[in-house]
Amino acid sequence: MSSTGIDHIGIAVNSLEQRVPFYRYTLGLTLLGYEEVAQQKVRVAIFDAGGAHVELLEPTSEDSPVARFIAKRGEGLHHLAFGVEGIGALLASMEEGGVRLIDRTPRDGAHGKRIAFVHPAATGGVLTELCE
Amino acid sequence: MSSTGIDHIGIAVNSLEQRVPFYRYTLGLTLLGYEEVAQQKVRVAIFDAGGAHVELLEPTSEDSPVARFIAKRGEGLHHLAFGVEGIGALLASMEEGGVRLIDRTPRDGAHGKRIAFVHPAATGGVLTELCE
Repeated sequence: MSSTGIDHIGIAVNSLEQRVPFYRYTLGLTLLGYEEVAQQKVRVAIFDAGGAHVELLEPTSEDSPVARFIAKRGEGLHHLAFGVEGIGALLASMEEGGVRLIDRTPRDGAHGKRIAFVHPAATGGVLTELCE
Repeated sequence: MSSTGIDHIGIAVNSLEQRVPFYRYTLGLTLLGYEEVAQQKVRVAIFDAGGAHVELLEPTSEDSPVARFIAKRGEGLHHLAFGVEGIGALLASMEEGGVRLIDRTPRDGAHGKRIAFVHPAATGGVLTELCE
């Protein structure tokens, strides 16, 4: 089992309207579209960045995890997601190895993906998403 | 001019010895090697992560920018680097557009690359490196 590489990088921002232009026009990344993730209470702008995606995350509610992140640390890099194969077995193996997990079993993410988060304590301070 | 995508993600850590095993063995990324970047006073472990690289950055001195980052915010995502074409012209165009830059002209990075940093104020709190 191993990761297939970076799937996406999530960046917490106050306003998509304010932040999309830098990534779209100044850097020239292709804007793939917008979507709303009700579960996380965020609106997301998704860019292609050479295979991996950059996702700007704007909270839609004050009790969104992303709103709490911004309140505490300001805008910035929020999480790093790796594509993996066999997410269920990988999580079981991590748990057995004493890796601190936020999700011990996969849950449903956007686009039919199965996802789980690993606690930053296990990764060097990086909220890490696994997705398949 | 436009970005060719994510080149690498830099993660600030206290100890490579402590943090490499998660990325190498638990996630299963390929460790490409180690290098020391004297200018930034860091020792770096470089992983392939599907084309883009993950770089773990361990400060070699208390006055390393990465040591100051960790002292202030703890371990975690430090910077995001995009590959670009025409870095000099891109920086000139950014400056003309009022984008706040750390480096107004490119400087030499590792492996013969030309690099420059964009201030987090311009990008949604993300220290952003351009490299060519």
